[in-house]
Amino acid sequence: MEELRIFTPATIANVSCGFDVLGLALDTVGDEMIIKKVSQKGVKITKIIGQDLPLETHKNVAGVAALALLAEIETKFGFEIEIDKRIKPGSGIGSSAASAAGVVWAINELLGNPFHKTDLVRFAMEGERLATGVAHADNVAPALFGGFTLVRSYEPLDIIPINTPSKLYATVIHPQIEVKTSDAREILKTTVPLKNAIKQWGNVGGLISGLYTEDYGLIGRSLEDFIIEPIRSILIPAFEAVKQLSLNAGALGCGISGSGPSIFALSKGEKVATEVAKAMELAYEKIGIDYDIHISKINNKGIKILESK
Amino acid sequence: MEELRIFTPATIANVSCGFDVLGLALDTVGDEMIIKKVSQKGVKITKIIGQDLPLETHKNVAGVAALALLAEIETKFGFEIEIDKRIKPGSGIGSSAASAAGVVWAINELLGNPFHKTDLVRFAMEGERLATGVAHADNVAPALFGGFTLVRSYEPLDIIPINTPSKLYATVIHPQIEVKTSDAREILKTTVPLKNAIKQWGNVGGLISGLYTEDYGLIGRSLEDFIIEPIRSILIPAFEAVKQLSLNAGALGCGISGSGPSIFALSKGEKVATEVAKAMELAYEKIGIDYDIHISKINNKGIKILESK
Repeated sequence: MEELRIFTPATIANVSCGFDVLGLALDTVGDEMIIKKVSQKGVKITKIIGQDLPLETHKNVAGVAALALLAEIETKFGFEIEIDKRIKPGSGIGSSAASAAGVVWAINELLGNPFHKTDLVRFAMEGERLATGVAHADNVAPALFGGFTLVRSYEPLDIIPINTPSKLYATVIHPQIEVKTSDAREILKTTVPLKNAIKQWGNVGGLISGLYTEDYGLIGRSLEDFIIEPIRSILIPAFEAVKQLSLNAGALGCGISGSGPSIFALSKGEKVATEVAKAMELAYEKIGIDYDIHISKINNKGIKILESK
Repeated sequence: MEELRIFTPATIANVSCGFDVLGLALDTVGDEMIIKKVSQKGVKITKIIGQDLPLETHKNVAGVAALALLAEIETKFGFEIEIDKRIKPGSGIGSSAASAAGVVWAINELLGNPFHKTDLVRFAMEGERLATGVAHADNVAPALFGGFTLVRSYEPLDIIPINTPSKLYATVIHPQIEVKTSDAREILKTTVPLKNAIKQWGNVGGLISGLYTEDYGLIGRSLEDFIIEPIRSILIPAFEAVKQLSLNAGALGCGISGSGPSIFALSKGEKVATEVAKAMELAYEKIGIDYDIHISKINNKGIKILESK
């Protein structure tokens, strides 16, 4: 195998109650990448379409992630990367994570899988560090593992794939405004009231339990964020309206995707997810804000091979 | 059915990472109670053996819990209660919860089960309010539901029974010193660093996941408390030594049971749990502190009928 064309998914981090630890992968939203073995050592980004992003290896999240992997293995060849960037940077659905996860996954495949997925998360986190200043794993982990994932611990890195019910669909609306991850982090408080932290870990426990028992009602009740959403939602226009309309349309829960500005909702079944999309669109049409919208099953597989040569 | 003799279990609340939300029931440690239907309305505590506790209904946790139940249903008769109190009050293994949960469970049985278990938790919490000043549910919930339970939310009350692996054993050592629940609560800080709260909910997610997948290694890695244990453990003599010796003896994890002073460890299998008990005993024998020690399977059933008339 000399060349892979892959699909690498967009992801929703935090998932309301699980700030910095939970994430899930989407199935119909993501980037395409081509990764080729070449005789010249090192990593070269030959083409990026769809977005204006740096081609220099050290300035590109995919480049940096690839270099992190190659620093831990001897190879007699190098890699060329083409990126068809379909996830908009800054949208809050893991744009940088998709690139970083995709490239290390594909290189690992081309090398015959010398690394465990948790190692790939570690390499991809270096891309996240370049993109946001923080090497978080809550987007790269679901991109690499698929489904819901829990970052139980960062030191040591401990990624737990969580059972993902098959009828779970995500609706994501991306209002066309910019919220920088670094700004969204800066407005957070460094301490939280213990009583809110208790509610939050009650919900994390409830969500994980609901995912294993496929109890959609419990999943919905647990999709509540007492700590981050009350602060970050002020950065997102009409957040409360979008949330309320989504819940009225039948969503199990609704919250901020990653650091925003995208808003996600989870629903049982595609039909409800589609109704939720209509409700979300209505909220932004009323106030004249442009948006992208996505409806997707949860992707249980993670990155997928589209073509191999 | 006019009379029930029941076993009502001791419980371990918090279980390291799950302060105020997680608990589990023990199988071989608990109280016995006799609850009788009588013609005279109201609740009368006729006998308490084993401990010096108030017989007055309004001053006794079982009495108060029973009254909370009877306030929500019309009955033509009353109840008499006898308590064989085997769990020492103040030990940190749910002594008041066992009495409160036992009496409401038995009255509900004698009435033909008009109430759901979550209602019984609510009634029993009134006993907890009397005992500790706080109507917490993390001991009464596992006593009533059995196994591991999660109090996902207090308002509304939402109790989630969690799958409990069959090889899981608890070892509990109770040093003969007094730690009042109210004191153990007062030393806690009202705010916590966000970064520690994140680690904590990562572990709650990991523990719940490990319980469903019966991954004993994951259960062990998740039994870590970044918030409460560092503060409360100073109230417990030789806590660090007991913990270290337990882990060395093969325990999956070790922490404070409820608000202490009991220390619990979880192990895979009775053999390891017995080795852990020896290690714990050694720690207290070295420094000359008296103790009680218990080894128990996790009790998946909760309260049990020993005899019915």
